[in-house]
Amino acid sequence: MSNLQTFIQENQLVIEQKLAELINELTVPTELKDAMAYSLLAGGKRIRPLYVLAVLEELQVKNEDAVIVACTIEMIHSYSLIHDDLPAMDDDDLRRGKPTNHIVFGEALAILAGDGLVTLAFGIIARLTNLSAEQKLNLVDKLSFSAGAEGMVGGQVLDMLGEGKSLTMTELEQVHVNKTGALLSFSILAGGIIANASEEMMNALRTYAFHIGLAFQIQDDILDIEGTSEQLGKTAGKDVLSEKNTYPSILTLEGAKKHLHMQYDLAIEALESVNLHKGLLLEFANYITKRTN
Amino acid sequence: MSNLQTFIQENQLVIEQKLAELINELTVPTELKDAMAYSLLAGGKRIRPLYVLAVLEELQVKNEDAVIVACTIEMIHSYSLIHDDLPAMDDDDLRRGKPTNHIVFGEALAILAGDGLVTLAFGIIARLTNLSAEQKLNLVDKLSFSAGAEGMVGGQVLDMLGEGKSLTMTELEQVHVNKTGALLSFSILAGGIIANASEEMMNALRTYAFHIGLAFQIQDDILDIEGTSEQLGKTAGKDVLSEKNTYPSILTLEGAKKHLHMQYDLAIEALESVNLHKGLLLEFANYITKRTN
Repeated sequence: MSNLQTFIQENQLVIEQKLAELINELTVPTELKDAMAYSLLAGGKRIRPLYVLAVLEELQVKNEDAVIVACTIEMIHSYSLIHDDLPAMDDDDLRRGKPTNHIVFGEALAILAGDGLVTLAFGIIARLTNLSAEQKLNLVDKLSFSAGAEGMVGGQVLDMLGEGKSLTMTELEQVHVNKTGALLSFSILAGGIIANASEEMMNALRTYAFHIGLAFQIQDDILDIEGTSEQLGKTAGKDVLSEKNTYPSILTLEGAKKHLHMQYDLAIEALESVNLHKGLLLEFANYITKRTN
Repeated sequence: MSNLQTFIQENQLVIEQKLAELINELTVPTELKDAMAYSLLAGGKRIRPLYVLAVLEELQVKNEDAVIVACTIEMIHSYSLIHDDLPAMDDDDLRRGKPTNHIVFGEALAILAGDGLVTLAFGIIARLTNLSAEQKLNLVDKLSFSAGAEGMVGGQVLDMLGEGKSLTMTELEQVHVNKTGALLSFSILAGGIIANASEEMMNALRTYAFHIGLAFQIQDDILDIEGTSEQLGKTAGKDVLSEKNTYPSILTLEGAKKHLHMQYDLAIEALESVNLHKGLLLEFANYITKRTN
């Protein structure tokens, strides 16, 4: 088993347990807790929280709060999926092989479960005990920016507005840098913030994160064409059917694959500049660009 | 003109300007900015932000960040109204005399405008420059709690679950303590946090805030019966038509008015304990229990 596989196996368990703990300790109406837990504890790859922990591992820093910060990012990711799946948005019935939140709990509770998760994330960070006040404020600031109107929420809007139009590569990239890139990038930067990484290290992590974020989305687009619904746990081929703007639709499938490799190379180059190109962050890049789900 | 009227006139202007400034400085897609601004800048009484500033005035503390904190609370209030008005929730077409957000921008953009506002609030607080790190974290912590699943969002769920059922007074109170009370209370406490108020003062403010929060909701329920749609800027009489649980429906209109006065008395008692019963906070209590919209 590779280092990465061992790392993922061990840490996924820790993340799952902490996510369940953070939801269970809430004093909230049962129906709301169930709806929040349903999506948050529905498995998934946990790439974002794993990335937080991978950066700390690579920088050889241990901090008990890291897994909690990791979980708050997953809360934000989970809320965004609940809202994205709503009838008024992507209208998806299936997510990770299970009925989506609003199918099980109804639209109103799904909206509120999402609202509950995004709001909870910030409070949890503010209450941490093993980080300095400055580190916590830095995390709140950057998480708000990455997840909000200037990041993920804005990217979702751009994606929506682009429907039915032909986007240029620059426009498509702007969608993805915001919609999926911002929060994924934040996961990597959060590791650096928790580790009190140097300015040089933060810059390298930022560059790595930017290109990995794009690579992740390009591979997502490729998988929609090459993967099966079974592998993906969601409807495959939906992008083509709905004439969505994707890397393959603009660059052809071959062109998208080339673009993916370019992003990969730039990410690895950034790792090399700080001598982190032989460990988990390299393996993560390999995993993300070669994953089948 | 009373002190309160002068205070409100002067400060509403400052709040309106700051709200516009905070939205305008965002680098986000125009459509999203418009949708966020539409609801946030739609007027309204601005009771929550005014309360933040009123507490500071009473405690004779000046802080340039106070108006910004006040605005973040209005962002949270505004997002909650946008989501509450959605077809899947209260399905309201009219708010403050204007078409609701989803009527103008569509459901998807309304959901995302709300998501953008709630997420923005926390980042703005984290980036303030005239408060200590501890004060900012305290604000983020308490705002997250008051606005989230254990506060406002949970209250909204309880309200929804109570539809079509007969609630007891205790159950109704639990709805309102969370749904409207938590965020209104936070506004008052936020003033105390910004002013670095003593433990004794914070306790008095907390008691005052709790009872004012309830009084506010009771008056809301009374106005739904006694007010006109024109006065309210929303459909009057809707509670009765939809057989909603309200203070008048449980206690009769007379009983609700008595209960309102009891809450008022308890709020003023708390002010007396810290010698704040002759100023703006008293006048605010009078205003809230006698308002016609």
